[in-house]
This record gives sequence, C-alpha cells and structure tokens, in this order.
Amino acid sequence: MAEHIGRRQLLAGMGALAAAASAPVMARAQGWDLAADVVVLGAGAAGCCAAIEAAQSGASVLLLEHLAQAGGASGLGPGVIYAGGGTALQRALGVADDTDAMFAFLSRAGGPNPPLDKLRLYCEESPAHFDWLVAQGVTYREALSEARGTPADSASLFFSGAERDWPARDFAAPAPRGHVPGLSGTTGGAALMRALLRRVAELGVDLRTSMRGERLVMLSDGRVGGVAVSAASGLLHVQARRGVVLSCGGFIQERAMVRRYAPRLHECATPWGGAGDLGMGINMAVAAGAAAPRMDEGAAMSRLDASGAALAGLLVNAAGQRFIAEDSWEGLIGHAITYEQRGRAWLVTDQAGALPETQQDFELAARSNTIGGIEEALGLPRGALQQSVAYYNRYAGRGEDPQFRKSRAFLRPVQGPPYSAWAVSGERAFFPAFTLGGVATGLSGEVLDAYGEAMPGLYAAGRNASGMVSAPLLASGLSLGDATFFGRRAGRAAAGAA
Amino acid sequence: MAEHIGRRQLLAGMGALAAAASAPVMARAQGWDLAADVVVLGAGAAGCCAAIEAAQSGASVLLLEHLAQAGGASGLGPGVIYAGGGTALQRALGVADDTDAMFAFLSRAGGPNPPLDKLRLYCEESPAHFDWLVAQGVTYREALSEARGTPADSASLFFSGAERDWPARDFAAPAPRGHVPGLSGTTGGAALMRALLRRVAELGVDLRTSMRGERLVMLSDGRVGGVAVSAASGLLHVQARRGVVLSCGGFIQERAMVRRYAPRLHECATPWGGAGDLGMGINMAVAAGAAAPRMDEGAAMSRLDASGAALAGLLVNAAGQRFIAEDSWEGLIGHAITYEQRGRAWLVTDQAGALPETQQDFELAARSNTIGGIEEALGLPRGALQQSVAYYNRYAGRGEDPQFRKSRAFLRPVQGPPYSAWAVSGERAFFPAFTLGGVATGLSGEVLDAYGEAMPGLYAAGRNASGMVSAPLLASGLSLGDATFFGRRAGRAAAGAA
Repeated sequence: MAEHIGRRQLLAGMGALAAAASAPVMARAQGWDLAADVVVLGAGAAGCCAAIEAAQSGASVLLLEHLAQAGGASGLGPGVIYAGGGTALQRALGVADDTDAMFAFLSRAGGPNPPLDKLRLYCEESPAHFDWLVAQGVTYREALSEARGTPADSASLFFSGAERDWPARDFAAPAPRGHVPGLSGTTGGAALMRALLRRVAELGVDLRTSMRGERLVMLSDGRVGGVAVSAASGLLHVQARRGVVLSCGGFIQERAMVRRYAPRLHECATPWGGAGDLGMGINMAVAAGAAAPRMDEGAAMSRLDASGAALAGLLVNAAGQRFIAEDSWEGLIGHAITYEQRGRAWLVTDQAGALPETQQDFELAARSNTIGGIEEALGLPRGALQQSVAYYNRYAGRGEDPQFRKSRAFLRPVQGPPYSAWAVSGERAFFPAFTLGGVATGLSGEVLDAYGEAMPGLYAAGRNASGMVSAPLLASGLSLGDATFFGRRAGRAAAGAA
Repeated sequence: MAEHIGRRQLLAGMGALAAAASAPVMARAQGWDLAADVVVLGAGAAGCCAAIEAAQSGASVLLLEHLAQAGGASGLGPGVIYAGGGTALQRALGVADDTDAMFAFLSRAGGPNPPLDKLRLYCEESPAHFDWLVAQGVTYREALSEARGTPADSASLFFSGAERDWPARDFAAPAPRGHVPGLSGTTGGAALMRALLRRVAELGVDLRTSMRGERLVMLSDGRVGGVAVSAASGLLHVQARRGVVLSCGGFIQERAMVRRYAPRLHECATPWGGAGDLGMGINMAVAAGAAAPRMDEGAAMSRLDASGAALAGLLVNAAGQRFIAEDSWEGLIGHAITYEQRGRAWLVTDQAGALPETQQDFELAARSNTIGGIEEALGLPRGALQQSVAYYNRYAGRGEDPQFRKSRAFLRPVQGPPYSAWAVSGERAFFPAFTLGGVATGLSGEVLDAYGEAMPGLYAAGRNASGMVSAPLLASGLSLGDATFFGRRAGRAAAGAA
C-alpha cells in the first residue's frame, strides 16, 4: 500500500490532503554541511537587506552568492530608490509630496489590477524606509534636479519616472521621488551596495560567494529546511533552521526561459541584468510548489529621451500612426512598443531633429526628401505617415498635441528635408529589458503556493518575486525600492521577528 | 537531524538533490478508497479523449467529473475542430490544403514564439486525428460553407478563423479548416461530446460525476500516485497505478485567479467557459511543482462580424485611430482590443451602417450629425477621428485600405448622418473570453516542472495545459483540436502505451 504524503489541511474537517512533489527520500547519513538560522540566496540589494534585518533580529545568517562577487544587478545601475510621501530628502529640499499622491500615481498610471496592498504599504512606509537606507550608510546629497534622467550633477533627488507624463499627471500631483546616491554617472548602485555590504559585514553575516543554489531541501513536515548548493568543493546541503530567503534576481539572462514565459519581452535586444539573472530562485520555488504570476511582464526601456531635439519628431508604428507622446518616460515607451505595437516603431525627424548618424542607440532606417519617401522606404501604408504628420503639424504649430499631450517644449511642426526614420524596434535598437515576473509573495515576503497559502520556511524578494512592480514600469527606482523594502520584510519574517 | 527528501538527480555526479514540497507524511491506515490504472480528472473533450485512448491501451480508467454532468466547456459551444492538411472531409469536398500551409498559418500569423513542436505535430497528424473522431462516431456532413461564422446551413466545413485576413493570407494559401458536426446552431459541441461519452461507456471507462479533484497525492518515490477527491460521501483518496491526467479546463470562471494571472483578460465582460473552469487542475499541478507558462494569455473574442453592413465602419481606439481591419476574425479583434488597446474601442458607423439600437452585442455610445460631434461625445482627441475618417474614406472610395487591408466587400466611404459610435470595449460589450494559460506539458502530455523535467505519473491536456494554442487565438476549433489531439496522447502516455 502506498504511503500518502499530505501537505496541509485543505479544508477544515476534510482530513489530510496530499500535495506537492517529493521523493525519493534521501536519508543522508552525514547530515548538513552548513547551517544557519536564515539562509539568503543572492547578495544583491534584496538579499543584503534581508540579511541585515535577519541579523538585526538576532538570527545567524548565511548569505550565499552565485557569482564571484556580491552586488547583483542592483550594483550595476544608478542605484535609484523610488521613495516619497515626504522623505527626509524631499522635506529638506522643500518638495511637497504625500502618501496619497504617491499611491495614486503608482496604482492608477500603470496597467490594470496592480498589487494594491503592496503598493499601499510601500507608500505608507516610504519615508521610514528612506531613513533606514541612510542609517545603513547610503549617502545622499541635498540637491534637486529638474532635468530628465539620472542627474549628471550629483543631485540626489529627481523625477525618475512618468509622474509628469500624461495621463499620469492628471491622477496625482507630480513630485520628484527618485532618490539616488550623490555621485556622478551610474555609480550609485555600486555605492548603495557598498553601504549595504558593509552593514552585512558589521552584523556578522556569513557572506560566501561562488555558491549557487540548486534545489530547495524539504523536510518531512512540509517545511523548507534548507537548500542544496553547488560550490567549488561539490554539492553542499545547507540547513536553514528558520527560513530560506530567495533573492536570486530575475531571468532576463536565461533566454530560453524568457522565450517560454515572456515571448514578447524575448524580442528586446538588450538583456538588462546581472550575469546571475538566470531565474534559478524562481525555478527552485516553482519546483517546490510556488505560484508564479505575471511571468510575461517585464520592463522594456526605450531611451528615446537621449536627444531633446529629436523629440519634436513623431514616433510611429507599422501603420504609420503615433501611439504615445515622444517625451514619455522610457519605460512607458518601451512597454508600448514591446507589448502593444508588436515590437515595431520608428522615430521620424526632420533635418532639425535628426540624430547624429554615429549615435549608438538607433540605426538610421530611411532618409528621404519627402515624408512619402520615408513611408515608402519603411513599407508603411500609403499616405498613412503623411496623414499623421499633417495632423501632428497642424496642432504642433499651436503648441498642442491633442492626441498624446506631448509637452510644449518638444512641440513644433516637423518640416524641412531631409527627413529621417530611426529604427526604435525592440530587436534593432538599444532596448534594455528586465523581467518583472516571479514567485507569488505576501506582504512579509512569504512565498505563496497555488492556493495562496504561505509555504513554511520560504521567502522571496526582489525580482525573484512578483512584487509591487508590475508592467508597465512607471519609474526608475521602483524595482530597487521593492527589492530593498520587501527584502527587509522577508529577512525579518524569515528570522521569525515579523 | 532532518530527513532529506530528494527528488531526482539534478546533475550527473552531483549527488542527490532535494526539491519540491511535501509533508507532513500522512501514513493512512486505511489505504486507498478507489483505484484504477489511469485516473482522469475532468470529463470534457480532453478528458474523454484521454480516457478512450487509455482504455484502448488496456488500462482500467476512472474518469472523474466535478460537475453533476459530463461534457465540460467542450459540450457548450459549436464543437468546431480545427483540422487540415487534407482531411477526409476536405478531400471529399475538393478543398486543397497541405500540412505546410496549415503550419505556416498557425506558426506565423499569431504572436511571437509560438510552441512550434506542438503545432508541427498537430498539423502532420491532423488528417489522421479527424479520421479518429469520425471513428468515435462524430458525424460530419459533406458540405462547405463560404460564409463567415459557424455554418447555419449544417455544412461541416468552413473558414473558422483568420486564414483570409491580412497579413495571414500572405503567409499561406487560405483553406477552410473548421470541422463542425453537421448540425444547426451551436449544438455541435453537445453532439461531439455525446459521441465521445458513448465511446467512453462502450470501453468500460468508470465515469463518475460530482467528484471534485482537490490535491494530488504524491508517493514517497516522487511519483504522482493518485488524487484526493471531494465527493458527496466525503474525501476520497483515489489511486492511479499508472498515471493521473488533469483535464479540468481553464480558469476563466475563477475571477480572482484571472485577476492575479491575466490582469488584462480580467477586464473582458463575459467569461466563456463551463461552470467547472475554476483552475483547479492547474492549481493542483502547480502546488505539486509544475511550471505554468503564459498564464496571462487568453482568447478574447469581439464579435464585430455580427453585422455585415456595420463592417464598413471604422473600429477606433481611444486616440481616434483605426488599429485592425474591421472584418478581421473575432479572435484577432478581441485580442487587439484587450491586449494592445487597453480594452477600449468603438465602432463608428454612418447611417447606412448603423446597427439596430436593440441588438444585444454593443451599446450605442454616441450619436451625432457630424464626426466631430462623435469625437466630442466620446472624448476622443480633437480632430483625430475626423482625420481617420478622411484618410479611410479617401481610399475606401477606390476599394482600398492600405493601412489594414479590409476586404473590398466592406469598403465604402463612411458618410451620411447621423453617425453612431458603438462601445466595443471589453468591459461594456459582449466580449467572451477564456484562458489559454496552463501547466507546461511535453508532446505526450507529460507535465513539466520548472526545469523542464517530466513529473512522473502526471499528465495534462486541454485548457488545463499550456498547449499548442497561444494568443492571439487564430481560429475557432484550435482549442478543441488541441484538447482532443493532445488529450488522446496524454491518455496513451498515462497508460504506459506512448
């Protein structure tokens, strides 16, 4: 007679129900190779924040990193944290903001059915979370930038997303919420990670690199008891007495996985992530029974705002129509092209708006002395682009864009040959993309199974989880904000302190 | 010391790795309540085909249906099977078709990265599969319909999808491939299911209704050993000596699940499925460690082709632009509105094209003596709709539609007040939708985990699986074709005969 392995009570009074794969039972004579109260996989921002909080809660912590160096994708970018509702930096700079405005923007300006509970909590605790980052040693400079994009002047507060775009600006008063370490260029991520890793060390967290999580180890009571890890010395079984936190990142670097789960995102040319973004943490959790919603979603960024003069042009689809304001935030443009325009788009400029031919973002796709010539060269429908330009020019001359509400600053009629078309298609342009899908989690980072039940001993954060960020990405700093904030919560919960 | 429960070897030579949830181990004194070689959950088309093949392979089969009556969603519709490449019915009617044309249409006319292996196999074996359906007692009438939509005249062969739409018609020579039982109206599904259920009975399959699968039962060797089922008498543990086939349908009726996994599809007004389409089979497999790709995808159908005269009008989005030929197949229009136009669209007609005000599909959203008045009433951008109508009319007068290639039959200038706008938005119109996402399967219906490994003893088919049908749905009959064809393969494999 077969032995039944049940998991949890499904319905009260229905008796023991079985679920979830297991077996064969491996009675290992030698026991565990390593042990800690909390084992965190992945030493990016989410993992470091989890490790810090778990250690501060009194747990012993092992932080295992797949790559030879800690930092993850978080360490590679500008290190923007999206924060608001009156952070210390906002207040110091006299910036008005409140929780409701931040929540209205995040909940209404993006896609349908966003995760409201996570967004609300994040907005409410955002000022305190920013204080916490400062307390960890991340430094910010009291200066506000009004310019587009990450400040080049080492200001630490800026508009990092779509707050001033239409229709977002109609939902909530825009406020600058991009908080970036006060450094030039894209070294903010490295600075953020340096600070977090310093805290990790100070707190006695045992950080080990070149150790790759392979599979979760389940105990006979259904609890996640540890993880099997590949190391130079072979396979190690690592015990997590209180909990495992998965913070292994997304899966943009694992192309077959992107094709399977996110077929549209697969067409974007430039995987944007650390070398470790291979979906391992997601696969480990899914193999153990976790749900993984919204795996198709991603952040696809089209950096049209590289050149101000070009933004007077028309961004058009394969039908020769505009579909979004050309000065929209890059995450919105990239999403529209990738998910709504089947990956195909061109920026059409006149002579005054032409990009340098040697710039690195977009190939020149066509050049002609007439709009009709551009139309023909691109294979657009006869007359369609001419029609779009005529309509656009009629209103642009008056500083208006009734269709997509581009800012006045970028509105002028497109006229004066030669005209140029620049390929902004996902597969041809510089089009960085990362994944937003991951395992289902509750507010404390607890991993949820298909029935919405928490899986004992298992937590996830950052892009390993389906977090508060859903597509389209509304601002730079949301992914890192989610990773740090919910990473902290996962660490506390795993330590049993939540 | 904790007991390790491993699952399968991950990498040769790395030793035993653990995976997937289990526990607590329930040593049930009384053993199994019911047993068979193969247990099939869900008695729709996929489940019946699986049961038939398993029984013909010599296995004893239990077929358990959640509802009080067998038939599933398959029994509710017209019962179209998409088949081609030279089926007996196509040949009898002198219809030219071949495997490559069918494959070219299915693989190129839809979304990016479709499941090519499943599509290829389906196309190659389509004539034989059709013969099998006939051999089961499904009857077809040797008559071809050229009309749009399911034949009203009881013809059994028709164009059931987008084969004649642009750009599909440029990829492959169109052929009629909708095979529908020779009956009037939408009773074909009932006829199909009657035939399959008759075979189920003839073959001695033990069909039991009002038995709802709750959780899979895992054996200690990692194999799926059975299923826990709710019945009137309480919870039963049902042993599957060779395999479990999950064919419980999709999840369109479980609205919270649709919101979580398919936020865009959630906005469609009319769940189109049986009462049993609650995602139970998907959840059972996911809880056991199955992967579930493309859960966001669905078939959303906008039945614009209800009225021929109205198709001369313009289908426009919130920017006042056309985005697809108005005479496109309903699955393509529904997909474009739901997934690419954020759920919002209107059909604008002149007096000659106006729908009856009392028709049931679309509400009248605006009426005016000018296009500008329609624009204003709908809140469309100033001048945008006028612009679209002017461009459209210019070419329509010559029988051309350079932008979206609508058929000549529906092309004429839209002119003559009053003009009307009909709400075709997902949430306001008749907009039936069903889910296409499900658990990952191989070509024999074996369920795959996050690593692409087959889960021993577990199979899935129909909308319980992520099958050969991905979004956009290209034709009526693809879902049922997938369910019957891959259902058969799952049944054979579960019986150990594949």
